[in-house]
Amino acid sequence: MTELRVGVIGGGQLARMMTPPAINLGINIKVLAEAPGSSAALATTMVGDYTQVEVVREFAKSVDVITFDHEHVPLTVLRQLEAEGVSVQPPSKALAFAQNKLEMRTRLGELGLPMPHWAEIHDAGSLELFIAEHGGVAILKTPIGGYDGKGVRVVRSASDAADWLSEEGLAKVGGHLLAEEKVDFVRELAQLSARNVSGDFQAWPLVQTVQDNGVCSEVLAPAPGASQATLVEAARIARLVSEGLGVTGVLAVEMFETADGRLLINELAMRPHNSGHFSIEGSVTSQFEQHLRAVLDLPLGSAESTAPHAVMVNLLGVDQTNDFLPHYQEAMLAHPTAKIHTYGKGARQGRKMGHVTVIGNDAEAALTEARQAAMVLRQDF
Amino acid sequence: MTELRVGVIGGGQLARMMTPPAINLGINIKVLAEAPGSSAALATTMVGDYTQVEVVREFAKSVDVITFDHEHVPLTVLRQLEAEGVSVQPPSKALAFAQNKLEMRTRLGELGLPMPHWAEIHDAGSLELFIAEHGGVAILKTPIGGYDGKGVRVVRSASDAADWLSEEGLAKVGGHLLAEEKVDFVRELAQLSARNVSGDFQAWPLVQTVQDNGVCSEVLAPAPGASQATLVEAARIARLVSEGLGVTGVLAVEMFETADGRLLINELAMRPHNSGHFSIEGSVTSQFEQHLRAVLDLPLGSAESTAPHAVMVNLLGVDQTNDFLPHYQEAMLAHPTAKIHTYGKGARQGRKMGHVTVIGNDAEAALTEARQAAMVLRQDF
Repeated sequence: MTELRVGVIGGGQLARMMTPPAINLGINIKVLAEAPGSSAALATTMVGDYTQVEVVREFAKSVDVITFDHEHVPLTVLRQLEAEGVSVQPPSKALAFAQNKLEMRTRLGELGLPMPHWAEIHDAGSLELFIAEHGGVAILKTPIGGYDGKGVRVVRSASDAADWLSEEGLAKVGGHLLAEEKVDFVRELAQLSARNVSGDFQAWPLVQTVQDNGVCSEVLAPAPGASQATLVEAARIARLVSEGLGVTGVLAVEMFETADGRLLINELAMRPHNSGHFSIEGSVTSQFEQHLRAVLDLPLGSAESTAPHAVMVNLLGVDQTNDFLPHYQEAMLAHPTAKIHTYGKGARQGRKMGHVTVIGNDAEAALTEARQAAMVLRQDF
Repeated sequence: MTELRVGVIGGGQLARMMTPPAINLGINIKVLAEAPGSSAALATTMVGDYTQVEVVREFAKSVDVITFDHEHVPLTVLRQLEAEGVSVQPPSKALAFAQNKLEMRTRLGELGLPMPHWAEIHDAGSLELFIAEHGGVAILKTPIGGYDGKGVRVVRSASDAADWLSEEGLAKVGGHLLAEEKVDFVRELAQLSARNVSGDFQAWPLVQTVQDNGVCSEVLAPAPGASQATLVEAARIARLVSEGLGVTGVLAVEMFETADGRLLINELAMRPHNSGHFSIEGSVTSQFEQHLRAVLDLPLGSAESTAPHAVMVNLLGVDQTNDFLPHYQEAMLAHPTAKIHTYGKGARQGRKMGHVTVIGNDAEAALTEARQAAMVLRQDF
């Protein structure tokens, strides 16, 4: 019997959510987890340190292709494996842009793609200059290692980032920081797409994302009231990024929409992404199934919607003892159409521990239903 | 952190397909498989003989509730565990009816439910009499152990069943056979429903099933052209069976529809069933998720449809070397909306090795698409 074997590095919720479509399609999914008892424990076949080339090499021997739950595997490790003939998807040359925001900005500029003004910052002087030229404020980012609002700071003077600008601070992030214009956006959007190894491309509907303290809290699919021009432009941007950066698998392009209707690229993720969780129920092919197809170089599935609207609300952790399961009775009884997902993760305030999706004909009703189910599960009224 | 732990006895495709919704809901699913490498290998935590009370007792210690992939666990084993306080869902008193078709017919008769004429057969004479009284033909069934057309025979005289009627043959099946009237049906229907431990009940839309040599080959949801009266009657029957036999979890009632529009109960299954695979994509709550909710006594989810039509086509094995995976490229390229499911089972002609579901607004188009995808996967043109 033939086997299709996918190896996922990282045992988080994204690896966990790749497991159901792998089961459906008869794909043998294996996970290299950081520790036992991860979110993706059911599919975990190896526990080890993904920064060690010997560990990842050993794992790679058991699968046909390596892909990722996160973007933190060192490029040196991946380049070594690629040199040894391992299929790494997305490849290291694409991941280089995801791992370093300065390289990402540089490449997007070469491609002529729309984004906020930005500059490489290496000292207080260059930051003060950028702030002065951009209305007295800047978004300062560490080019590597940031996620979910971490590694991002709003600064109005170099003294707001004295720690990052110190010799020690700069050394931690490769010697440079990234300053970006603080965009006066009306909302945030995300364009999810997938590209397989052969280059086939599919885009899901553009969605609106709502952030809470830098963490995604809600996703509305499709983005309410988006013009045809905006939809076309968003899909065009996703395709150019995907092709221009050599991405395979799922790509999420997070964007700002400005008052005058422009789209500016904020962040990229080269893997299934929180903005695409709605697709599990809301799309003919979910982002998790599509990612598996793409990295195995299978033809992509239809990204059509299964309903006019889908709404996803994150279940963010409430505190250290937070537990959703005792509230399943109440939530399921009151919300029989809510699709509840929990990730089996330990509790922590603000942590992404699950999500709720509701699909339907009425966007308002779906949002209300999803929010209320989430409130019951979080006991946050 | 709270845990919801479900133990499934049997490692077949039904246990396999319970795994994705368990992952989504954060339910800890454990499977007691007959052998390593079963369809449900990913969730298998124990391999052992389910006819041994010590084995099942040991397994039961690791979970909150025991449920089933099949109906073959000896009642003596289950009764012993129930006496020891284990939650077995559906309970042994319900499974007794699923395991013995004579007891099932007797109980359905007590409940006044519509079914073919039937009689208990214990010798050639009683069979000849039944045949004579029912147009010269009867459907003869072994009351225990039959499935997918096995243990069923069309007989026109006692000599057609001489082996079953021999002392040895009768001893194998508990001393009796079941004769049923050969119903002149226009089509076969199935009513899928679920009932949780507290008694909440939900029915999916009535479906039409198409059999091929006694094995289900296609399911059309909802049943084309079914009258409102038929829909109401089918749901009424399912509820009466579920309540009257004390079923918990998913119940499939297979029925004949006669030319004059009557529904007659053919077979029952007290577990997720082939006639309900469409619900994975076709319903807000799939039969596999609903079964988990029901046996854990969680509130049932909505059984509403996600699309006007869903069609499921079984991937029956072609031969001993049959393998669908090499044809994924071709099938996925031509059929991007087809949802392909394969069960990781060894090849055998006629074996249920997977299925394809297509949902949509147009029943004919969905059927064509699902059939063609199945033909490509089976390479059967």
